[in-house]
Amino acid sequence: MIECSIPKNDFDTVQLAHGGGGKLTQQLINNLFYPYFKNKYLEQEHDSAQILLEGNRIAFTTDSFVVDPIFFPGGNIGDLAINGTVNDLLCSGAKPRYLSAGFIIEEGFPMEHLECIVKTMAEAALKAGVAIVTGDTKVIEKNRGHQIYINVSGIGVIEDKITILPNNVEPGDVVIVSGRIGEHGMCILSKRNHLEFESEIVSDTASLNDMVSHLLTTLPESIHMLRDATRGGLSSTLNEIAQTAKVSIEINEAALPISDGVNAACELLGMDPMYIANEGVMLIFVKQENASEALQIIRSSEHGEHAAIIGRVIESERNRVYQKGVFGNRRIIEMISGEQLPRIC
Amino acid sequence: MIECSIPKNDFDTVQLAHGGGGKLTQQLINNLFYPYFKNKYLEQEHDSAQILLEGNRIAFTTDSFVVDPIFFPGGNIGDLAINGTVNDLLCSGAKPRYLSAGFIIEEGFPMEHLECIVKTMAEAALKAGVAIVTGDTKVIEKNRGHQIYINVSGIGVIEDKITILPNNVEPGDVVIVSGRIGEHGMCILSKRNHLEFESEIVSDTASLNDMVSHLLTTLPESIHMLRDATRGGLSSTLNEIAQTAKVSIEINEAALPISDGVNAACELLGMDPMYIANEGVMLIFVKQENASEALQIIRSSEHGEHAAIIGRVIESERNRVYQKGVFGNRRIIEMISGEQLPRIC
Repeated sequence: MIECSIPKNDFDTVQLAHGGGGKLTQQLINNLFYPYFKNKYLEQEHDSAQILLEGNRIAFTTDSFVVDPIFFPGGNIGDLAINGTVNDLLCSGAKPRYLSAGFIIEEGFPMEHLECIVKTMAEAALKAGVAIVTGDTKVIEKNRGHQIYINVSGIGVIEDKITILPNNVEPGDVVIVSGRIGEHGMCILSKRNHLEFESEIVSDTASLNDMVSHLLTTLPESIHMLRDATRGGLSSTLNEIAQTAKVSIEINEAALPISDGVNAACELLGMDPMYIANEGVMLIFVKQENASEALQIIRSSEHGEHAAIIGRVIESERNRVYQKGVFGNRRIIEMISGEQLPRIC
Repeated sequence: MIECSIPKNDFDTVQLAHGGGGKLTQQLINNLFYPYFKNKYLEQEHDSAQILLEGNRIAFTTDSFVVDPIFFPGGNIGDLAINGTVNDLLCSGAKPRYLSAGFIIEEGFPMEHLECIVKTMAEAALKAGVAIVTGDTKVIEKNRGHQIYINVSGIGVIEDKITILPNNVEPGDVVIVSGRIGEHGMCILSKRNHLEFESEIVSDTASLNDMVSHLLTTLPESIHMLRDATRGGLSSTLNEIAQTAKVSIEINEAALPISDGVNAACELLGMDPMYIANEGVMLIFVKQENASEALQIIRSSEHGEHAAIIGRVIESERNRVYQKGVFGNRRIIEMISGEQLPRIC
């Protein structure tokens, strides 16, 4: 459990009335949310934040987080939510600017845990250079096993020359993965099932502002597509892009960056790291001639040290994802069809 | 139960895998969300919607909906969510433009109910002139009694001459309520507790675009503040404004527009309509000299036929809300301190 300061509220746990819109709601907002999320937009104390944008091309995204357990090695539901939404904005080529925070909290949830989550959110927002400008709190009845769900929606500004869309992907493009895969999924899985490995597997939750900002500043027109490979892992993300862009993608298994810990866990559990969720890992589709420069930029950025070129886009009417195995075999990587691990994020 | 068309999915109920990010998630998006929410932004099939705004002054808001029951006379959680967020944007003086939809659905939730909710959301969005441009679906395990929660965040554009903020409210301002109070709260209460009254009490859920647009076009500088009186009812909303604007507000009990049904229910249950939640009812603070013109505009707008001048803003260091009773008595209206009815919205 992450350590946080002592709660400033009169209650040790969240009460139904904290979501009732009256005195306790106001107390929760004034004593917990405002001090941590402090900014001039929240001080407007209005139903919407009134914000200024420095451009008219905007990215808008939303994500609800229901991860179980809510605290895990490397983070908690709070920074996961902020980083997840920030990364979604970055994937549109946008500079993330403003976030909302919508809480659905179970009655009786420890105020100390809530404060810890809120504090982590504030820190993650600060690190990603975004402001949490508007919010909402609902409280639902006890003993329904929810604990807390958080929705974070976000707005970012897209500069004129940037266009990052799945349709941009074209044959010849090189596929780079920004970090070691499977860390978040395996972290949650092992934590939930009390599995212990030689070394603890830690979630990769992180915002990738530094990396994307370097890439888009240096190679604004060569980056065709960005997407974080979250639920469904690399396999689902690659299949989605192949289908939307109407291309096929060939992945080289030997090139996939995987830690010893995740590798051992996958072998033990008979799982394929291509299907395991990531959080702070992005797929980058880049023009062939700029691939090595892009790789260099990513590797010298925060969270990019393990980046690797893992494949390329090929012309094919089948819109498939293929994986070339270590022994030269080639197999189709399908999109995940069942549910490997619910409540991963 | 509202009638909807037959679901187009292979499953009768929502499966965990519908939230897994793989094939079933894609099927749900392609067969249910896209056809109803259809617009060019969703067709980008990207993590964020890339949108264009015609100004740089933006309102941004978020609201999570956990109402129980999810279907009630006059609406369901779907249109409630759209209308609630649209009204929050209107209260900032913004023209609502783009919405997000984040679903948290319980495994086993009937697909037919989901389709009905989605259809209602699409209709409410169309009516309010907004596009649902980005979304997210999470599925949580069965038998935890959730059914469905919906977060709707929204973006609107604020025209240059408009400034609607609680701080604008000043002594002398007249307080108008846009419709009959207590309908939504009493509707949910009676439905949840199987209370039957002579005539069914129907939720007032509605977006108030027509009314606000007429007001702001005709009296752009005389409208000081708008706020929908949802959770906590008029009492909490008025107290919030009094505290932020550092004024007191005097309400005339005899002027409050209340239907016979809500009146009878309140008497029966010993409840005060000032504390009962509304959905499609707004408080309007307007300059004294424009009050009767504003009232006329509101009354001739959709959902405004029962509007009434209910009070005025007075100078006072106490930042209180007073109510002048029908017999001339004067009492302090406190902000609600407990929780009258959880999961009202």
